[in-house]
Amino acid sequence: MGLETNAWSEAAPVATGVDRLCIDTIRTLTMDAVERAKSGHPGMPMAMAPAAYLLYTRFMRHNPRDPRWPDRDRFVLSAGHGSMLLYSALHLSGYDLPLDELKRFRQWGSKTPGHPERDRVNETPGVETTTGPLGQGLAVAVGMALAERFLRERYGEEVMDHRVFGICSDGDLQEGLSHETASLAGHLGLGRVVFLYDDNAIQLDGPTSESFSEDVPSRFRAYGWHTLSVDDANDLEALSTAIAAGVAESARPTLIAVKSIIGWPAPNRQNTSKAHGAPLGEDEVRATKKLLGWDPDAEFVVPAEAYERFSQVERGAALQAEWQDRFDAWRAERRDLAEEWDAAWSDPARPMPGLADALPGFDPSEDGALATRAAGAKVMEAFAPFTPTMVGGAADLSESTKTEFPGEAVYTREAAGRNVKFGVREHAMGAAVNGMALHGGIVKPYGSTFLMFADYMRPAIRLSALMALPVVWVFTHDSVGLGEDGPTHQPVEHYAALRAIPGLTVIRPADANETADAWRVALEDVDGPVCLLLTRQNVPVLERGSVPVTGGVARGGYVVGEVREPDVILLATGSEVAVALEAQVLLSARGVDARVVSMPSWELFDAQDAAYRDEVLPPAIRARVAVEAGVAQGWSRYVGDTGRTVTIDRFGASAPGETVLTELGITPERVARAAAQAAGRQIELPATEGTPAFEATPPQAGHS
Amino acid sequence: MGLETNAWSEAAPVATGVDRLCIDTIRTLTMDAVERAKSGHPGMPMAMAPAAYLLYTRFMRHNPRDPRWPDRDRFVLSAGHGSMLLYSALHLSGYDLPLDELKRFRQWGSKTPGHPERDRVNETPGVETTTGPLGQGLAVAVGMALAERFLRERYGEEVMDHRVFGICSDGDLQEGLSHETASLAGHLGLGRVVFLYDDNAIQLDGPTSESFSEDVPSRFRAYGWHTLSVDDANDLEALSTAIAAGVAESARPTLIAVKSIIGWPAPNRQNTSKAHGAPLGEDEVRATKKLLGWDPDAEFVVPAEAYERFSQVERGAALQAEWQDRFDAWRAERRDLAEEWDAAWSDPARPMPGLADALPGFDPSEDGALATRAAGAKVMEAFAPFTPTMVGGAADLSESTKTEFPGEAVYTREAAGRNVKFGVREHAMGAAVNGMALHGGIVKPYGSTFLMFADYMRPAIRLSALMALPVVWVFTHDSVGLGEDGPTHQPVEHYAALRAIPGLTVIRPADANETADAWRVALEDVDGPVCLLLTRQNVPVLERGSVPVTGGVARGGYVVGEVREPDVILLATGSEVAVALEAQVLLSARGVDARVVSMPSWELFDAQDAAYRDEVLPPAIRARVAVEAGVAQGWSRYVGDTGRTVTIDRFGASAPGETVLTELGITPERVARAAAQAAGRQIELPATEGTPAFEATPPQAGHS
Repeated sequence: MGLETNAWSEAAPVATGVDRLCIDTIRTLTMDAVERAKSGHPGMPMAMAPAAYLLYTRFMRHNPRDPRWPDRDRFVLSAGHGSMLLYSALHLSGYDLPLDELKRFRQWGSKTPGHPERDRVNETPGVETTTGPLGQGLAVAVGMALAERFLRERYGEEVMDHRVFGICSDGDLQEGLSHETASLAGHLGLGRVVFLYDDNAIQLDGPTSESFSEDVPSRFRAYGWHTLSVDDANDLEALSTAIAAGVAESARPTLIAVKSIIGWPAPNRQNTSKAHGAPLGEDEVRATKKLLGWDPDAEFVVPAEAYERFSQVERGAALQAEWQDRFDAWRAERRDLAEEWDAAWSDPARPMPGLADALPGFDPSEDGALATRAAGAKVMEAFAPFTPTMVGGAADLSESTKTEFPGEAVYTREAAGRNVKFGVREHAMGAAVNGMALHGGIVKPYGSTFLMFADYMRPAIRLSALMALPVVWVFTHDSVGLGEDGPTHQPVEHYAALRAIPGLTVIRPADANETADAWRVALEDVDGPVCLLLTRQNVPVLERGSVPVTGGVARGGYVVGEVREPDVILLATGSEVAVALEAQVLLSARGVDARVVSMPSWELFDAQDAAYRDEVLPPAIRARVAVEAGVAQGWSRYVGDTGRTVTIDRFGASAPGETVLTELGITPERVARAAAQAAGRQIELPATEGTPAFEATPPQAGHS
Repeated sequence: MGLETNAWSEAAPVATGVDRLCIDTIRTLTMDAVERAKSGHPGMPMAMAPAAYLLYTRFMRHNPRDPRWPDRDRFVLSAGHGSMLLYSALHLSGYDLPLDELKRFRQWGSKTPGHPERDRVNETPGVETTTGPLGQGLAVAVGMALAERFLRERYGEEVMDHRVFGICSDGDLQEGLSHETASLAGHLGLGRVVFLYDDNAIQLDGPTSESFSEDVPSRFRAYGWHTLSVDDANDLEALSTAIAAGVAESARPTLIAVKSIIGWPAPNRQNTSKAHGAPLGEDEVRATKKLLGWDPDAEFVVPAEAYERFSQVERGAALQAEWQDRFDAWRAERRDLAEEWDAAWSDPARPMPGLADALPGFDPSEDGALATRAAGAKVMEAFAPFTPTMVGGAADLSESTKTEFPGEAVYTREAAGRNVKFGVREHAMGAAVNGMALHGGIVKPYGSTFLMFADYMRPAIRLSALMALPVVWVFTHDSVGLGEDGPTHQPVEHYAALRAIPGLTVIRPADANETADAWRVALEDVDGPVCLLLTRQNVPVLERGSVPVTGGVARGGYVVGEVREPDVILLATGSEVAVALEAQVLLSARGVDARVVSMPSWELFDAQDAAYRDEVLPPAIRARVAVEAGVAQGWSRYVGDTGRTVTIDRFGASAPGETVLTELGITPERVARAAAQAAGRQIELPATEGTPAFEATPPQAGHS
């Protein structure tokens, strides 16, 4: 069949001339790359090629020679499986992504992985974010728009004034994340967001009608979005008009629903779910090329006119030069702000002169006991002046997590403050925080909720680790010690689940001083994502004797309670360090000397050299007990075959926090008994309040 | 101030007489319980008391004396923090929840925990599900409605014909889960769902206007819901009319937006976020009681008229008696179906006669190699007749996860089939599957997606474990072996993250035969949630020599490759068992005898007695190597201080699966080298393809 006989294509003028050539080049590059890789998703790039062509050549302000230009428009392919659309557009626009890389699509070490990856080590120029897990791209784009507005209002339109474009799919809009994100973006009126929705009515399992019949534009209007429709993805004029209207709209985010035919114009595969996630096959590729008037025998062909028309090298250079002039003038006028700007766009992990001294110190006698979340509030207040472009917030829990910059404005529709009220939208918060970090200019954006609800945003936390983003996750109410809210709110498996994520630094400070130290480490030392786990309940400010108040957290683990010649080592994190120190007293009164090691971060400790690790955990001392109010998983590595664990390997319960901790066996008595067992010593102790069922057991019995 | 001076209450007639007495009893019980517990959420129950009163006394068909009556209407308090609303209504309706339990609100061992808990051990009669994590209740309710319709169509309206009522909050509707769920329910036209939305315009951090401005009814209409509004939660007539309209609507789920004033009528706390999550305080409670015309000095007072009016004992008994007559008649007529019904409502973990024989066996010579997801498809086809009311589906991935009942119908708006197309809605799938299990009558409902996307539904997986629900989670594409889709789709931390959840049985079968065995264990042996982790790539059907093909999985770990006197033990799961067996060959050719243990499930292995565990892992043999294509976390417990791990402690990469596995060091050579090291033997091996960076290292170095 020929194009003219395609009923759908008669509906509207199909692009012609060089426009059409550029568009079809995306289609043929896509078919060839997927065919060569023997895997991939050809359908979406073939259908949406016209949109990518228009965005990259007519609407987006970007410079292929400087993919890190701060004021560039961002493009986010939320439907990451259509990665060849992005790679083709980047290659044709003139980014440093040679045709050879497209030929290595989905191969080891190539810059063209199956889904777009924003990878610091093996960077693909022009790829703004990693996408693939559906819904993330749309949410990241909203985070980028949050950052853009904040920086625009702080530094002025002359230096920050751009948009965030993107393409999303049915799948993106089915994910719950799309709801949280769109509702938030509509509420805040983020008018710089312009998204195209590839409405192709096909998903992996078949027609979307089998599972998806909502009225998407009405839904987005209910969120306060500006919505438009285009009946035919091939109608360049209609597409241009709609995108232009989205660009013109500044008070509301824009969603353009674009009717497309997946895999168009493949004669046999178009409009089928087969076109979604599998190569078309040699014959179909040849047939499609014939249909397009291309040589069916030639692969990876780019006509010279296509390169010429598509290239953005000149236009991009000119655009950036204009900006540079404005920026230089601004810099000359506003030296103070310019210095701040430079810092905000520099290395995310860098010493902040004066920070350590500015942070509060806490004294056992003066401060007694306070929750580490409360200490965190004082710490944030103290470092706020050091991070003027740090933006973040909580998922409707700032009253409980105590995370905000006091005296700073709330981020509203009218003005961009530093305190974002994300609402009960943990997942959107996570992805938006990632987006702010990806945008640049925002120092260590953060998101905060109860540790339990880290589960609701886990895919975003994972992506922050995969992209090694400089973000901070503040999770409070970090154990059964939170009490009455019960097992639905009491984390037990979450320490293990977060530590399992590669590249994520998890820090669970023992007291107020470790909390200050942990924030310092997060701001100055670590350039990837950091989780801070803080208590709801009060914990004593630890007596440290000769141990310096700061510095221990940075090494992940250190001796906080020393004895002359330890018979046994007690390892603990967070609120359990105080329990271990009480056990130490019980033990020493009975002639057993226990060293207490505070171990706020496994990752930081494991990164120390063997000499230091052996100093803290001398290999000769095999009698060891780990104490943590969560599942034992992973502790065997530190306590060893002869070690013990005093942990909570079950769900919690609703009761006052102290009661729950006692009933579940997190008591000094139980720790002391376990320590004596490990050391092979007999001691007399008052009967523990802990239920016998929770008696400490050796690893082999399956409890650690 | 008096009620009449409350501007808002003038808007509509406030209930009077005994109606009002019943409603105020809920309010005073709530205030008293929260006050005594010194914690809790009084605001919502006080505002929505009229709705609860109407639902429990006029609309819901339920029997306080038989909370497990199969055809009862279900009530789901999605806003679980308002638990005193539920406890008060249950007590007053006549459920076995004495006043003393309300006095023990939020105390250890009480039946009135902070959030409602559906707990098999310490059951609270009338609590249908655990809620608290926002969004879950609405989704569970939709799952219950899915179950009701399936059973109604299968067995007839005379035995199954009820509704699912519920109350949700702003927070529920801000969560992404509410979108996935409402979109699915609207698509399927689940008309038996009637939900009230407590539109109180207040959330924890302040007025919802600060973060939430979407038009909720319009949004739900876009999903295909029937929406109604009530301007005043105290207007019983308007409420009744709206609920009746919801009951009358059978083609669409109903959402009734009810404007309420949180904490009403507390003179100083009403309409403030303070009323949301903290006790009102003694003075405010007294003032409120005065305002209501109650004795400010009396606590936990229930007027006799309130008991009389509220009690549903007689009405409930009559309703169930009518049903019982219909049921007995039906049973007499349809003995065949009645037998099926009995089985469907009996113990979720029970032997299914003939099942084991019906399951396919796979032969190495005949079947060669096949993906365990492909084996899973054959197994499901084989057991389908044994589980006629098993319903489930995938999140738009059934083509990839290969999970469906062949020849069975799809669950659509028109008819309820056994194959549900959930769309790209992992979280709604998870919660809806939980809801089907909670409803009863559905045998082992299941949900399926890629293992990576277990992260998107993790809160629902956790709740399935917390409630010990008989559900099956089928997660395929279970390692970097999936290949080209890259790190966004390749799980590495997920084995550890799932094993960390208490009460969840994780099974990762090594080959087709273990897959059949794993399904059998999930159906017959385990009454809690089971995760099956299956491969995308082909794995060989293992040669077992004298080892029986079935039975190993049930014990969690067993010797699959034996030698006379093992020098070293290789432990592996899933696709890595074949790698270990290849390493065994390499080793024996070099004079090192290695036992290979297939360990598909830690939880099942840990549940065996010490004698069995020691037989599989003889304590005397300390040379051990664990092989798994994921993070090492947790393996130290099995390999011990002198053991090694061959694992992937980083994110994956986009390339053909074999390449990724090799580059990341999951190779027989590397396993053999690690085994030799552990056994203290020198062996010569061809240079491994594995990158040196991934050389196996002892636990203490921080890699396991």
